[in-house]
Amino acid sequence: MSVLVVGSIALDTVKTPVEEHADLLGGSASYAAVGASFFSPVKLVGIVGDDFPSDHIDFLKGRNIDLGGLQQVPGKTFRWSGEYMWDMNTRETRSVDLNVFEHFTPTLPAGYTDSQIVLLANIAPSLQSHVLDQMSRPQFVIADTMDLWINIARADLEALLSRVDMLILNDGEARQLTGETSLIKAGAKIREMGPKFVAIKKGEHGCLLFGDGEFFSCAAYPLEDIHDPTGAGDTFAGGLAGYLAASVRGPVGFAQLRAAVVFGSVLASFNVEAFSLERLRTLTQSDIDSRYQSFRLMSQFEVIG
Amino acid sequence: MSVLVVGSIALDTVKTPVEEHADLLGGSASYAAVGASFFSPVKLVGIVGDDFPSDHIDFLKGRNIDLGGLQQVPGKTFRWSGEYMWDMNTRETRSVDLNVFEHFTPTLPAGYTDSQIVLLANIAPSLQSHVLDQMSRPQFVIADTMDLWINIARADLEALLSRVDMLILNDGEARQLTGETSLIKAGAKIREMGPKFVAIKKGEHGCLLFGDGEFFSCAAYPLEDIHDPTGAGDTFAGGLAGYLAASVRGPVGFAQLRAAVVFGSVLASFNVEAFSLERLRTLTQSDIDSRYQSFRLMSQFEVIG
Repeated sequence: MSVLVVGSIALDTVKTPVEEHADLLGGSASYAAVGASFFSPVKLVGIVGDDFPSDHIDFLKGRNIDLGGLQQVPGKTFRWSGEYMWDMNTRETRSVDLNVFEHFTPTLPAGYTDSQIVLLANIAPSLQSHVLDQMSRPQFVIADTMDLWINIARADLEALLSRVDMLILNDGEARQLTGETSLIKAGAKIREMGPKFVAIKKGEHGCLLFGDGEFFSCAAYPLEDIHDPTGAGDTFAGGLAGYLAASVRGPVGFAQLRAAVVFGSVLASFNVEAFSLERLRTLTQSDIDSRYQSFRLMSQFEVIG
Repeated sequence: MSVLVVGSIALDTVKTPVEEHADLLGGSASYAAVGASFFSPVKLVGIVGDDFPSDHIDFLKGRNIDLGGLQQVPGKTFRWSGEYMWDMNTRETRSVDLNVFEHFTPTLPAGYTDSQIVLLANIAPSLQSHVLDQMSRPQFVIADTMDLWINIARADLEALLSRVDMLILNDGEARQLTGETSLIKAGAKIREMGPKFVAIKKGEHGCLLFGDGEFFSCAAYPLEDIHDPTGAGDTFAGGLAGYLAASVRGPVGFAQLRAAVVFGSVLASFNVEAFSLERLRTLTQSDIDSRYQSFRLMSQFEVIG
């Protein structure tokens, strides 16, 4: 089964305390689509300008990503520039140039509308809803969001929430959306807003998954050095959605989501080891399997008599 | 096998955004000893004044805690008063009256010096070392510490570290002790200072356990409401040490420590559900077993075909 991914495609300039790189492949949909592509075929919906490097197109195609939903239009590609502080946790956005992304309307080609697993990567919630408007009945819809939309498009976001099966957001956003300081209360409250499942990402502290009376706490992989956190959350969402598309037969249950969250975390842990999507270019199935086993080892405990 | 616990015994006044209680049983050794007592017999070393309520003595005795090492002297018991902010994570100390604790010298009765499992709960590192000076060869020594000692008694703490098997401290203290922002690097660096094992407590984010090439990430139990975080870390250390004393035959290995960390987390999760040690007064083995199973459930994942 393939996964439909819609979101932003960008050229990023990223500065960390030790390095700076310009014109990197970025955007929520790029990370999410490539993350998902390790598990299942992907259909990508997004927009780029006529300056978008053909190398990036070739890379995406090479990852078995269907670009039938990629609009390439006159003008410049969306550009984002950000800087990470010394702790690699705090990020400042230095500039945002929406360019062709400003008037993006995601349009699904004929072969896309019956996709069963849908990942609405981080873009305006009105656009995420517009994608759902075009679809027949998808089996499982995952939405990612960010603080910006909670601030400026809350009504759109709430309308979207009633239409999705799972929301992914980080700890700060969960607190902002619900007004709850406890993430346990926040997770429960978001479920009341619509999504049956909620994943709250906590960066170096891992991820919490909430379902109907069920709860899963996923550890973060113990990385000594993080080279570029950009796209970690998008890669997580992509890996999660790709794993579901590859493995789910019938209704998506909590057991499948547990494993999906671990595979998403595996993908994200690789992604932050290098700038942009560089690490994912060389990542192998064997790398993924080996790190999945590490997640098992580091989470495992049993009573010893 | 019994566990030797040394630390402070206090009468606490604790204020949270919703409640305030005075003259509560507190202190690192009280929490640690009671935590350990759910798994093994405990020998307690500490000091109280002649104002220490006999009810507290009776409670400790009733928990199968040997009070042969408890000094009761003329004067007032150590008093501590603190206030938790709205998020229940930030704490301000309002007052500290050391009283009889100021000139405390822990002295081990004859039957205590050959204890095999030793928990040096949070007191000055020079006193923790003084306890070890009086002992024959304990099998496994665990020390807890706090930011105060890293600030004012770093040399004493470093001298202690070369003599203990395991150090327990929180995330902020680990960063402070090592100068590393990454907890993964901090854990490795503390191991180089002496302890074969390090547990870094992260409050609502759980706990990281470091060994020789081994790593365990323990989730925190998802509590909706925390009534009093005081003593959570001491109870964790006590539960951990008590479990080891009850279960270990031969050298302590990483597998046993994984389970010990989970049982410590189970005990701590109960302790914060009420003020002081109130929740531990009614806690049953069945409560502990049931929450241990919850820890398994919330940490468990498997690939679904």
